[in-house]
Amino acid sequence: MPTPKRITGVLAPVVTPFKRDLSPDVARYLRHCKWLLDHGCAGLAVFGTNSEANSLSADERMVLLEQLIHGGVPAERLMPGTGCCALTDSVRLTAHAVKLGCAGVLMLPPFYYKGVSDEGLYRNFAEVIERVGDSRLQLYLYHIPPVSQMPISLALIERLLKHYPGTAAGVKDSSGDWNNTRAMLEAFAGSGFDVFAGSEVFLLDNMRGGGKGCITATGNINPGAINRLFENWQGPNADALQKDITATRNVMQKYPMMAALKAVIAHYGRDPDWATVRPPLVELAPERKKSLVAELEGRDFDMPGLARESAAATA
Amino acid sequence: MPTPKRITGVLAPVVTPFKRDLSPDVARYLRHCKWLLDHGCAGLAVFGTNSEANSLSADERMVLLEQLIHGGVPAERLMPGTGCCALTDSVRLTAHAVKLGCAGVLMLPPFYYKGVSDEGLYRNFAEVIERVGDSRLQLYLYHIPPVSQMPISLALIERLLKHYPGTAAGVKDSSGDWNNTRAMLEAFAGSGFDVFAGSEVFLLDNMRGGGKGCITATGNINPGAINRLFENWQGPNADALQKDITATRNVMQKYPMMAALKAVIAHYGRDPDWATVRPPLVELAPERKKSLVAELEGRDFDMPGLARESAAATA
Repeated sequence: MPTPKRITGVLAPVVTPFKRDLSPDVARYLRHCKWLLDHGCAGLAVFGTNSEANSLSADERMVLLEQLIHGGVPAERLMPGTGCCALTDSVRLTAHAVKLGCAGVLMLPPFYYKGVSDEGLYRNFAEVIERVGDSRLQLYLYHIPPVSQMPISLALIERLLKHYPGTAAGVKDSSGDWNNTRAMLEAFAGSGFDVFAGSEVFLLDNMRGGGKGCITATGNINPGAINRLFENWQGPNADALQKDITATRNVMQKYPMMAALKAVIAHYGRDPDWATVRPPLVELAPERKKSLVAELEGRDFDMPGLARESAAATA
Repeated sequence: MPTPKRITGVLAPVVTPFKRDLSPDVARYLRHCKWLLDHGCAGLAVFGTNSEANSLSADERMVLLEQLIHGGVPAERLMPGTGCCALTDSVRLTAHAVKLGCAGVLMLPPFYYKGVSDEGLYRNFAEVIERVGDSRLQLYLYHIPPVSQMPISLALIERLLKHYPGTAAGVKDSSGDWNNTRAMLEAFAGSGFDVFAGSEVFLLDNMRGGGKGCITATGNINPGAINRLFENWQGPNADALQKDITATRNVMQKYPMMAALKAVIAHYGRDPDWATVRPPLVELAPERKKSLVAELEGRDFDMPGLARESAAATA
């Protein structure tokens, strides 16, 4: 197989549905992935932070990825998260994703030990690349210091790009700090290194700076509107489109994101079981869910076709 | 099998040796475990923070635990770390350790997601206990907020003790905050809940407050002296013994702990391969190693018998 074509546009870190016994719910998962691809997502960053991926074992992730692909989700639209605390897990998940033909992988740094040096992080990524040993690997670095507590510095990116120019493919910047995204764009966007904003709030700025799109939690529920901006970022309405999706994002940000995304999907899909999360997360309390939905309705928010598809599946 | 007898005294979070290809080195591991048990350790908290356990996959941990026990380390002296980000991994590792007859397990909270509620953490631990479903399980909570960034509150301990009185067995407090350890002792030491200091610096205070010992990184290299204080904490020399082990600890704390522990074992065992760490950690630079050893020599520090055993094994 050749090196996969790089994804640009809007990617969702797909939320992972669980049955009441907390096992992954493959039927709902496949349905949601297909809905996302049909409604604006260029790709699916499965097993991201908002996927509760770190609440899944390595084996659970591998089985789910196979089930997605066998269920009809094209591998060339997948960018699974494969960065774990343990080097051996990261190697195993990454090799598996490459072998299945995934467009790329989105890799967290090992995040248990704190205050680790750039040298140590470099060795981690280099070791994964060397052990996977496959030129098809497209590695996207996942910079999310508020959660991982383990930043990925510009110097580290520079070193990886220098040593693995065909492999170090890009970054997702979830720092929430536009100055950092701008610095990444200025330093690397000209070298074929694809910068994705970690939130649609920065999508227009990112595109204007030479970025390639965004990988965003709310891509799970609002992919159509976010993609409209991606497709029209050079058009006359771009600022208005940005303002609109930012307003929806701002509603979501008032709530614990993962539980809120699932509550919204449960509501608009008329499928209450969607709300289930794995510990240590907790589902949204009923009154919080009510206020979230009321705020979204106030914005004429909708998830077109979701209830119909979910009704058809459970009929 | 009956519920195992609880360990009291000094436990080491055993450092995990790696071969040059970064795979676990079982022969060196077994040798070090036996040296520790022969030189002052009451128990071995394998797969702790200082064991680089979070750089090992779940399967690697399970295989190593079996190899230890089959190699002659008594299960009743083992307290493996089994707390992972993924509920399913925590359940699997915990059930495995209980089945093998381990004295207890030392359980990190799931540590990827930040700002998680006590309700979510309670559900995590309760779910593990329920799924393991074995009255022999002795669960020690692992409070290490500087690394896990996920504290275990007094309210959470109280709730677990109330619902699982025979199972919630104790805590390791690695907060580095004596006021927190004291609060745990005052609240729970009278209820059969065993409080271990996370550093020998607090060993005497912990014993005087009703605690049961310490689980400490430097137990890997200085178990004899630390155990002398444990055995004589009510004796006339207790404060002098405390002062001595604190001084050695203070030397170690100037260096990155895991690399420093391995450098010390490599030096005193005349076995340079011991220094290997897995990414994202980095071994001690030669000049740092030299200054560490010089500081220890200045304190007449030794690891009795280590070089002899290591020479015999490699002869």
